[in-house]
Amino acid sequence: MYNDQGFHVAVVGATGAVGQQMLNMLKDTTLPIRELTCLASKRSAGQTIDFEGEKIVIKEAVPEAFEGIDVALFSAGGSVSKELAPEAAKRGAIVIDNTSAFRMDENVPLVVPEVNEQALFDHQGIIANPNCSTIQMVAALEPIRKNFGLNRIIVSTYQAVSGAGAVAIEELRNQSQQLLNEEAIKPEILPVKSDEKHYQIAFNAIPQIDKFQDNDYTFEEMKMINETKKIMDDSNIRVAATCVRLPIATGHAESVYIEVDKDDVSSEDLKKILSEAPGVTLQDDPANQIYPMPADSVGKKDVFVGRIRRDPDIKNGFHLWVVSDNLLKGAAWNSVQIAESLVKLGILKLK
Amino acid sequence: MYNDQGFHVAVVGATGAVGQQMLNMLKDTTLPIRELTCLASKRSAGQTIDFEGEKIVIKEAVPEAFEGIDVALFSAGGSVSKELAPEAAKRGAIVIDNTSAFRMDENVPLVVPEVNEQALFDHQGIIANPNCSTIQMVAALEPIRKNFGLNRIIVSTYQAVSGAGAVAIEELRNQSQQLLNEEAIKPEILPVKSDEKHYQIAFNAIPQIDKFQDNDYTFEEMKMINETKKIMDDSNIRVAATCVRLPIATGHAESVYIEVDKDDVSSEDLKKILSEAPGVTLQDDPANQIYPMPADSVGKKDVFVGRIRRDPDIKNGFHLWVVSDNLLKGAAWNSVQIAESLVKLGILKLK
Repeated sequence: MYNDQGFHVAVVGATGAVGQQMLNMLKDTTLPIRELTCLASKRSAGQTIDFEGEKIVIKEAVPEAFEGIDVALFSAGGSVSKELAPEAAKRGAIVIDNTSAFRMDENVPLVVPEVNEQALFDHQGIIANPNCSTIQMVAALEPIRKNFGLNRIIVSTYQAVSGAGAVAIEELRNQSQQLLNEEAIKPEILPVKSDEKHYQIAFNAIPQIDKFQDNDYTFEEMKMINETKKIMDDSNIRVAATCVRLPIATGHAESVYIEVDKDDVSSEDLKKILSEAPGVTLQDDPANQIYPMPADSVGKKDVFVGRIRRDPDIKNGFHLWVVSDNLLKGAAWNSVQIAESLVKLGILKLK
Repeated sequence: MYNDQGFHVAVVGATGAVGQQMLNMLKDTTLPIRELTCLASKRSAGQTIDFEGEKIVIKEAVPEAFEGIDVALFSAGGSVSKELAPEAAKRGAIVIDNTSAFRMDENVPLVVPEVNEQALFDHQGIIANPNCSTIQMVAALEPIRKNFGLNRIIVSTYQAVSGAGAVAIEELRNQSQQLLNEEAIKPEILPVKSDEKHYQIAFNAIPQIDKFQDNDYTFEEMKMINETKKIMDDSNIRVAATCVRLPIATGHAESVYIEVDKDDVSSEDLKKILSEAPGVTLQDDPANQIYPMPADSVGKKDVFVGRIRRDPDIKNGFHLWVVSDNLLKGAAWNSVQIAESLVKLGILKLK
């Protein structure tokens, strides 16, 4: 898959749950790749990663490691991005950052290609990949917004543990087995590793993702609210969010309630628009019990939408059920897709 | 616990998940019990049930079995209730029915004692126990409605499998173990046993509870919409619902968004009202990561409420997170509580 006429791509955080999927997504990207560099913490440096039959030695992520890099995909935590993304950009790399470090920075485009690809033209070296739960929601809602207007979103999420990393998947697995064995459990990771209290995730639901803010919303909820307005470039859309962690390894689901601007829209209109929308697969046939589910979404790049129906009491109110692989469209795939868009739009060019 | 001056109580469906909890709830009820009769299908007749150290032989549920019964608690499925509840009522018993058979019948009170106990005065022999997900929601919202008015509810549920019976708990357990062992699974019960397709519930989310209706809503969703309006005796409240089955054995959670009538209400006002409300326990302290969770609700009679916060964009919009044991307040406890209310209000009297 290497291409002499391609780019030198770096993946920062290559050993993590998202980093691994970034490497997977790079295997069949349209982005031409000349060389691939894997970067991680000092602790992981020296380990090797298999990539297309080749063993790549992981290097330590330090400023000098970005010399000669064209595109750097970051997914190694916010503090790493804050420190090293500007260093990478200074050395000429375009950074696509999957952390929350720069998302609300007004000089940083926050991009879901199906929604606001054109914002990439404004980049100043760093481009932010939105939060996983935001990406799948705006990908499903943008075609509706474009055709019928959108003035309100009320979303409740059903989020998988892999959003909290590989250690959280391991915790779900171990805890599930211990509870099935009727053994004692000792939660240590979820809901937030650095928070004081940790709770049972197996066979439970935890209404906390990321840390609580002063306004009693979690940071995850505020991400959904603020990022949606930024990506859709409309501060007037009212967004309300409740984010919940569930005993699911991978695949986020969302119960999304919307109010459109137009008064004469039917649920069939929404289905038609979504059946033609890029990156969206409509799975909506109640009579045959067809609707999206997290287990079916794993490993797929699309956003799946179903259960579309009008509010019996509100003419312009509609329900949707939106599911996607949180590690792919919610993270790794959207990042690689941004790199592909940069090439397509002529922003990233071969030197 | 038997009392010579008490009532003759029958439990119909005594071997089921809810029936078992009805017997548990009868162990420490204030309802005086003279005699307890356990009824079930022909298949279960002859088996014995331990109750307070006594072995009770299960009898077949036939019309004649209700001779001399004062109160009959039904939880053996809608078709059994449709056939036998009128027979029991005809013989002088007051029926408290936990199925959906009579809930929307205008001659049948649909009662959550904390909300509309007075409706019991209108009974004509049959009283309906509402759907589990409806009960916990209206118990949490009624104190708010009474003080601040309530014009809109948008709810997304996170429902445990025990709502689909003991076989569904067994399916969740077996499937979880098989998936942990990386073995093949064969779903046979959920989402709806009598439907054509069955799906993985372990480590997944199924956006279908009960059968689909012609309007693309599930029956569970329509129950929440219609029953809420009937219990609150207000057809103007707009209710929108999405119901989702999750890999949780017991304990339903709900992300509830409301709009109150008054414009000057704060989230502190809601917390104060709920902290004083009957049958409700406030668990709301984000700074200390205090919020309700299904695993903590198991075996408890109360409805737990937390994550109360105002919508940043809508002055009279608020979020709540409502959790309760679906087999207790959602079913068995609410049924027994109705019986206690009947005595308290002087409707059920010793002969």
